[in-house]
Amino acid sequence: MNGDLSDLMHRLGQAALAASDALSLADTATKDRALREAAAAIRTGKADILAANAQDLAHARERQLTAALLDRLELNDKRVEAMAKGLEDIVGLEDPIGTVAAQWTRPNGLAILRVRVPLGVIGIIYESRPNVTADAGALCLKSGNAVILRGGSESERSNRAIHACLVAGLSAAGLPEGCIQLVPTTDREAVGLMLSGMTEFIDVIVPRGGKSLVARVQQEARVPVIGHLEGNCHVYVDRDADLAMARSIVLNAKLRRTGICGAAETLLVDRACIATHLAPLIKDLLEAGCEVRGDDTVRGVDERVRAATEADWFTEYLDAIIAVRVVAGVDAAIAHIAHYGSAHTDCIVTANGATAARFLQRVDSAIVLHNASTQFADGGEFGMGAEIGISTDRFHARGPVGVEQLTSYKYVVRGSGQVRA
Amino acid sequence: MNGDLSDLMHRLGQAALAASDALSLADTATKDRALREAAAAIRTGKADILAANAQDLAHARERQLTAALLDRLELNDKRVEAMAKGLEDIVGLEDPIGTVAAQWTRPNGLAILRVRVPLGVIGIIYESRPNVTADAGALCLKSGNAVILRGGSESERSNRAIHACLVAGLSAAGLPEGCIQLVPTTDREAVGLMLSGMTEFIDVIVPRGGKSLVARVQQEARVPVIGHLEGNCHVYVDRDADLAMARSIVLNAKLRRTGICGAAETLLVDRACIATHLAPLIKDLLEAGCEVRGDDTVRGVDERVRAATEADWFTEYLDAIIAVRVVAGVDAAIAHIAHYGSAHTDCIVTANGATAARFLQRVDSAIVLHNASTQFADGGEFGMGAEIGISTDRFHARGPVGVEQLTSYKYVVRGSGQVRA
Repeated sequence: MNGDLSDLMHRLGQAALAASDALSLADTATKDRALREAAAAIRTGKADILAANAQDLAHARERQLTAALLDRLELNDKRVEAMAKGLEDIVGLEDPIGTVAAQWTRPNGLAILRVRVPLGVIGIIYESRPNVTADAGALCLKSGNAVILRGGSESERSNRAIHACLVAGLSAAGLPEGCIQLVPTTDREAVGLMLSGMTEFIDVIVPRGGKSLVARVQQEARVPVIGHLEGNCHVYVDRDADLAMARSIVLNAKLRRTGICGAAETLLVDRACIATHLAPLIKDLLEAGCEVRGDDTVRGVDERVRAATEADWFTEYLDAIIAVRVVAGVDAAIAHIAHYGSAHTDCIVTANGATAARFLQRVDSAIVLHNASTQFADGGEFGMGAEIGISTDRFHARGPVGVEQLTSYKYVVRGSGQVRA
Repeated sequence: MNGDLSDLMHRLGQAALAASDALSLADTATKDRALREAAAAIRTGKADILAANAQDLAHARERQLTAALLDRLELNDKRVEAMAKGLEDIVGLEDPIGTVAAQWTRPNGLAILRVRVPLGVIGIIYESRPNVTADAGALCLKSGNAVILRGGSESERSNRAIHACLVAGLSAAGLPEGCIQLVPTTDREAVGLMLSGMTEFIDVIVPRGGKSLVARVQQEARVPVIGHLEGNCHVYVDRDADLAMARSIVLNAKLRRTGICGAAETLLVDRACIATHLAPLIKDLLEAGCEVRGDDTVRGVDERVRAATEADWFTEYLDAIIAVRVVAGVDAAIAHIAHYGSAHTDCIVTANGATAARFLQRVDSAIVLHNASTQFADGGEFGMGAEIGISTDRFHARGPVGVEQLTSYKYVVRGSGQVRA
């Protein structure tokens, strides 16, 4: 271990801890002012941000990163404005800190309040998309948490330029810079320190990135993690599905955006309706340019359908590819999802309320939908405002992670001299 | 690693996982029936339980365990009846599973429900008190979680006898035995497997025991932990405290029961009221048989007061000993608690609302009380029914951990064909 790096990271940790104390007591107006000023700084600093991003992009092209990665990395006028607007949207969210989540009075007169408080210091480890710097920093600030951001090396310059705008916002509002810190090195050891060498400073780790990052975090972390595993999402078209609705939902769930975690990856069709429903569903997908990988029955519908392998049922394509399987009704769909799914987001299309209820109860996923596209798996679409991701964990936060999910609570008990018998 | 042990533990894990699926769908009546039948089995099996406990006690005396440990280990008619009654009390708790924690409708017509679901499989590692077998097993059952119980070797026979009664209850209700399993070996490697070798089976670990157990769990666990660290609890007597109330609360907080985590360990007295308040508070404690360790000012009150050392401020005595320090007002009290406390339960006694509000906001503990004894730090006293402990973590559950805190949630979304724009 590099002693200088360790010192550096511990200084970041100490600054975060000190800032966390101040931030936990900051009022909403102060936090919102910091966010508005940061948005303004992003707009006035747009040229600097785009110049830094151009350097990152040039470096990424030299390293021959994929087109998908380059797209994730690239900023432009519209994306910079969206970042600034995103900060302003977070101003509009209700401040969760200090709100009373529950309250009751005991027979002995004790009044008990469950009050939301920040988690403390959050470490966020992310890749490629530089807008995460602004989004995640702002969500942590609004929820009263100090944050240590560790972006990917490919977006290093962009992240620094964006982070400078956030710091300008903090300064304008009189909040310590330690509220939002960016790890100033791309040394991979820094990630290891965040995961296991800074337990006295960091309360929660949020990984945002690909499978290898998530796997490393889950293996090494010595602090709680809000994990975001893959979204191997399913749409099950039941025998009682309205065909037009099913076609509309399947197309949207798969193809509206293929690269998001709520995109459908597998279509399950009830054997009882294949005569009427299967061919239109498959032809819609093929005609929209989607590759279809199916079982033998599905392949019989159209010669363009390729043979699905066992691996396909497990695969999150994040691309215009879908696996399609015929199943023997809702229980077989539930069993398929239990075996192959990732407990992220799954949907049933049916007009039968009892069948829907069975699916919604028995599919053990963070989000289960009836007659709606899986692409609604999103904090904004849920009305929670911005999100830091979709948790596939069961512990603490499940589903969209917004400002409320970034809080803990404490009990405030008010008495008049009560002692326990 | 012992291959046989590994096989054994994996069989337990598989049985728990299968039981968890069944249990997550079990209705309240079925779970309550299992609990009532288990209570009946404990009553009819009392002689067997007491005989097993007598063997444990004899063995413990041979090993020369302390009187405190022997007391924790010992069962008698009254304690067995309390266990049975405890199960019946859990029948009376509201079943959290399937309840709607929040619901709202989006402008596009999507109805979103946040529905409570079980966490899954819980591993509980505990020491000495055999009643934990019944309490923890029952709380997990009510909250729809399968549980793997690992008790201490000192209570091995007692735990087995109690566990047999729980299994009788499960069988009577038609629930799988895998719902509540007791690790059938005292091999310490079994704990290691639960912490890090069974991540595909165990969703959460709850340690209930001393510091060395908690430290091991926090070091080794590869699954989320609901931690229960020590309760170094404070009572701060402010300049505006009513003296009679302060005396009553301090005596109760320290001495009602000294061995529980909510017992006060340090008394802080505002310098501004030492002329009136300090001597009566100290004399009360000394006359009640409590050892007092104080700073120089406190020692000036009574010659029986011993000198407190730096270590005393950090110490959870769990005994009739209290550390007493004079502080310069509420902010000094808050600073003392932040530095020396364990973020468990802390109390201010004052008639000044503004001072109380400052203390309640700034002391970052799971439970903060105004004018009430710290001994109320208890799920039952909070009206939550039985508890599995008091969490000093910030993540997922903080404070008393009852059936509601043993749940996760999922989002159920109902639409009418909505697709995302």
